[in-house]
Amino acid sequence: MASKTAERILLVSLELFNQQGEANITSVDIANELDMSPGNLYYHFKGKEEITAALFSMYQDRMKRVLFSPGENGLVIKDFFYFLYLTFETSHLFRFLYRNPSDLVAKYPYIEKGFKNLIKNKEKGFNQILNDFIKQGSLAVKREELVHLIELISMVLTQGLNYYVMKGDDIDDDDIIYRGLASVFFALSPYLDIEEQQKNDLQLAIANGTLDQ
Amino acid sequence: MASKTAERILLVSLELFNQQGEANITSVDIANELDMSPGNLYYHFKGKEEITAALFSMYQDRMKRVLFSPGENGLVIKDFFYFLYLTFETSHLFRFLYRNPSDLVAKYPYIEKGFKNLIKNKEKGFNQILNDFIKQGSLAVKREELVHLIELISMVLTQGLNYYVMKGDDIDDDDIIYRGLASVFFALSPYLDIEEQQKNDLQLAIANGTLDQ
Repeated sequence: MASKTAERILLVSLELFNQQGEANITSVDIANELDMSPGNLYYHFKGKEEITAALFSMYQDRMKRVLFSPGENGLVIKDFFYFLYLTFETSHLFRFLYRNPSDLVAKYPYIEKGFKNLIKNKEKGFNQILNDFIKQGSLAVKREELVHLIELISMVLTQGLNYYVMKGDDIDDDDIIYRGLASVFFALSPYLDIEEQQKNDLQLAIANGTLDQ
Repeated sequence: MASKTAERILLVSLELFNQQGEANITSVDIANELDMSPGNLYYHFKGKEEITAALFSMYQDRMKRVLFSPGENGLVIKDFFYFLYLTFETSHLFRFLYRNPSDLVAKYPYIEKGFKNLIKNKEKGFNQILNDFIKQGSLAVKREELVHLIELISMVLTQGLNYYVMKGDDIDDDDIIYRGLASVFFALSPYLDIEEQQKNDLQLAIANGTLDQ
């Protein structure tokens, strides 16, 4: 995967997949877009399956880095939203994976397995952080309700894009992320036991799209 | 659409589409499943496109009937959840539409337009009912926050299935509906200004899957 050409192939494939869906792109389309002969492309990747596999593994690596980044205790609620922002952003970069997950899962067994593990790890991460907040006293959610909160967050993060596509909303990438976060904030907000000022600041940072600053 | 054969073709197509995705089924697959010659199928529907169009229009009709059913004022919160149950159930019956919406929307212009209208009407319906609750005093949500609540509900209703598929959860149809409703209840619950007993009864009906009884 080290070669410059292989990297260029992956980036162009990612862009085409994101724009038109993996199912609608052939390896010949990718070669054409790169002004490359199909034979040359084949030298680097043995067909679209290998490209998809390489992209999925890039996605997994990035997600793992994001998911293991908080690690330490002592996160505050704002950090959690920043962490969600990063998770959302990374998924958005590989958004073709979320276009038709049922088909991808049926077609590629490693994606089926990989998605399961990723979502499991993601929800485990959320669970740990949210449990810390409950212990700290900044989140007043019963432990048995946590599963619903986590499902809501996870659904917004993984399915938000499809929803906006179906709705026909023409909004740009950063807006999608922040709109999702605003909905998560709405669901979480009544359960937050933090100072009113902090709460307002956080809501403002989400509304203004400045969480990452 | 009146003929018994046409009806049978649609029902079998719906089942195949739901199981394997519209993109993975050809009109020959449908004819085979029906023990029918492709020519006979063609006599009723000129290809898969016409079948998909007929199914989408069935879905639209059913959804319209559900969406216009509450109509009258004087709904209580429990009615709203029953209304969500019906909406969810109808979408679930035509769940192939939610498998890869981006592809369907790109392939069929009438689905693109139809989805937009449906989601718009659905959210308008939610908005009206929730606004009535605000007026009645049973829901304490600021009008400008309503958009987030509606997005959350709509996302759970339209994207819940893909989420459970990705997660690899093997749960049956009714469970998916009630699990989604439990997450909606979690988000809505702190904003509900109704008697504690009513709230507990509703939560129990959702947990036990007895909302429709």
